[in-house]
Amino acid sequence: MSEIPRIRITDAAKYDGQTVEIAGWLYNLRKSGKIIFPLVRDGSGIIQCVGVKATMPEELFETLKHLTQESSLIVRGKLRAEQRAQGGYELDLESADVVQRVPEETPYPITPKEHGTEFLFDKRHLHLRSRRTHAVMRVRHEIIKAIRDYFDSNGFTLVDTPIFTPAACEGTTTLFEVDYFEDEKVYLTQSGQLYNEATAMALGKVYCFGPTFRAEKSKTRRHLTEFWMVEPEMAYATLEDVKDVAEGLICFVVQRVLENRRTELETLERDITKLEAIKAPFPRISYDQAVEILKRKGSEIEWGGDFGGTDETLLAEEFDRPVMVDRYPTEVKAFYFETDPERPEVALGVDVIASEGYGEVVGGGQRAHSLEVLEQRIRDHNLPPEAFDWYLDLRRYGSVPHAGFGMGVERTVAWLCGLDHIRETIAFPRMLYRTRP
Amino acid sequence: MSEIPRIRITDAAKYDGQTVEIAGWLYNLRKSGKIIFPLVRDGSGIIQCVGVKATMPEELFETLKHLTQESSLIVRGKLRAEQRAQGGYELDLESADVVQRVPEETPYPITPKEHGTEFLFDKRHLHLRSRRTHAVMRVRHEIIKAIRDYFDSNGFTLVDTPIFTPAACEGTTTLFEVDYFEDEKVYLTQSGQLYNEATAMALGKVYCFGPTFRAEKSKTRRHLTEFWMVEPEMAYATLEDVKDVAEGLICFVVQRVLENRRTELETLERDITKLEAIKAPFPRISYDQAVEILKRKGSEIEWGGDFGGTDETLLAEEFDRPVMVDRYPTEVKAFYFETDPERPEVALGVDVIASEGYGEVVGGGQRAHSLEVLEQRIRDHNLPPEAFDWYLDLRRYGSVPHAGFGMGVERTVAWLCGLDHIRETIAFPRMLYRTRP
Repeated sequence: MSEIPRIRITDAAKYDGQTVEIAGWLYNLRKSGKIIFPLVRDGSGIIQCVGVKATMPEELFETLKHLTQESSLIVRGKLRAEQRAQGGYELDLESADVVQRVPEETPYPITPKEHGTEFLFDKRHLHLRSRRTHAVMRVRHEIIKAIRDYFDSNGFTLVDTPIFTPAACEGTTTLFEVDYFEDEKVYLTQSGQLYNEATAMALGKVYCFGPTFRAEKSKTRRHLTEFWMVEPEMAYATLEDVKDVAEGLICFVVQRVLENRRTELETLERDITKLEAIKAPFPRISYDQAVEILKRKGSEIEWGGDFGGTDETLLAEEFDRPVMVDRYPTEVKAFYFETDPERPEVALGVDVIASEGYGEVVGGGQRAHSLEVLEQRIRDHNLPPEAFDWYLDLRRYGSVPHAGFGMGVERTVAWLCGLDHIRETIAFPRMLYRTRP
Repeated sequence: MSEIPRIRITDAAKYDGQTVEIAGWLYNLRKSGKIIFPLVRDGSGIIQCVGVKATMPEELFETLKHLTQESSLIVRGKLRAEQRAQGGYELDLESADVVQRVPEETPYPITPKEHGTEFLFDKRHLHLRSRRTHAVMRVRHEIIKAIRDYFDSNGFTLVDTPIFTPAACEGTTTLFEVDYFEDEKVYLTQSGQLYNEATAMALGKVYCFGPTFRAEKSKTRRHLTEFWMVEPEMAYATLEDVKDVAEGLICFVVQRVLENRRTELETLERDITKLEAIKAPFPRISYDQAVEILKRKGSEIEWGGDFGGTDETLLAEEFDRPVMVDRYPTEVKAFYFETDPERPEVALGVDVIASEGYGEVVGGGQRAHSLEVLEQRIRDHNLPPEAFDWYLDLRRYGSVPHAGFGMGVERTVAWLCGLDHIRETIAFPRMLYRTRP
């Protein structure tokens, strides 16, 4: 017996006209008298098989005809180009082996009918098998790969910062506490930034990329308690460098997704023209200008306040691409921001607000690099000075202007995929009332 | 005034003979009468500058001559090829600006003299500026990039698994507990494997890559409480596939490091011939054979016991490359291992033991895919069945043979860099008595 190659569905075009083997699961099944159309998925794609009663053993035909959803099976047959099929190929069934049949009495719980969100996330370990979730996971993969490629090819060194931290970046109220050994307490990181500043002084241009945690009792569609963030930091850099790098990064990521994940965007029914509009240069406005726009549009914002989600959405309506807003009031920003030398009441920070109401995807700016200024800030913010002594060392030994930002992965995925809720952007979302499965 | 290009030291060759600007820090300074040789680092590399008293303003010469270690400065001058210099170039100083001078009274604490390990890790935020640490961080970056490239180019989808988990993979004794909201407790992940099994059933070939945590009161040179791990998982795969992929991955990573990080390996005085020997095929032996070898070499191991660090080192001595040991006693392996159908007393698991005594770098195998077997195992191991109900769903709905493994990043970095202690492999190590800075 000659060896039949086992292939992945995504590689079907390479085996046009050949007899191949595909190992997967029954995604769906249509029947039409003496023909069956099992839809088989293997994780790389979905292919329609065509089984004709007259051309296969009676028993096999009957087995397949009554096969249950998500049963695992191996199919063999000839690949045939078929323009109307997604992926462009169909498989004319010659033989098949059922690996495990899902019993009728305990059927696969997620049927093609509508299910409630709570149910689907309770069954998330199975829900991940759906075509839609596959599309989101593949776009997420592409985004993460593009982010890393961008930094790796622009002279940044990846330096992972710690998850266990002794002190908080911006206060302790939204920190998760961990019991370390012998009554010691540590906290889960909210940001690698303070550590990034140390590694940027060592390696010039760095980034960290890992999970971060926020114990916010928030139930909005934009918040997870566990989420991934990339944070670049650059020595000898300013607010303007942050804008340029953030703009370059976002354009690069969007381009990669458009090039490599068009099928997935179609599955998600994403309006591609909205993504194609995301091109440099992004509009760059000041906080002052943003407040003016918001007032004109009916927001109750006053100069000095931070933007809420609604404000961000209102602001995004004005532009067809992301907008960069800089120079927020010093009061609403963290202690480590550099202030504008000509206007100390505003901080040299910038937020990038995504288009279409997806909110802030990037936040960053220039860091205060004077020892005296930072010491005063730590006092003003009532932070424990001893916890920041190592951080102040960075200002004692060769301090230089430096700047960086953070970009949230899940918000970027939600934006580029056009998703309503951030819980869809990650395999196993963690939220206020969701820690399972 | 014409614009002088600001360059990174690593790009010096592209600007041969040109006047350039470099922004960095004073790494070291030699003086020889009317000539000074400031060694400047910018994070991308280190370059020797040559300052001749006769060719520059008196005041600048004196300023540089008395400049303190790690002061930040911007230098300008002409690049000149110099074979004897590391990096191949020197810079003939024309002008310079000191950005921040470190005062004599509070000098940079890490001097070129020898310091104790505790001191250096207390000052880790500064210690990262040393040539040796740079080399390790760059090799680490290269290893992580190579791992991701390997999986991305072999059809694997990255699916991040959760850090917050409700249950334990292999018991709760070595788990860190986190206070979630309203008296809920969650645990920090020790492995993404159980979740990987769900995503592999969805996407065929997957990997997760993130930090993992182990609350082990261990003080050995091989353990951190927070470490990074990559874990691939494949549907329709067996123990033999794990061996092939692990071997392919390790060879790919070693090759990349040899190609791209030779300078760093030289800085670390790594014996390159030992790395060049790491080529497929790796020897593949059984646990039975390993026990025989160990007994012959004087170990007190008996059939049925797990290998300790000393056993792994003894075993590694027998081979010039990593050795794969399979079919460990079922008793010493976790509940989810598939057993050998012909010898139920051994599990279809494999460990890859690094060469030169660096211990186990890969552990994995084939997972039990029968519902009945797993239910029995969960009872036998006294695990709470309700916590694994979702996991058992993977055996209820289209179960297939599947397999995967985990590879620890820090152990791999220690091995390829030739480091004595794992604390050197990560920017901010977390250990039993080390949570700062």
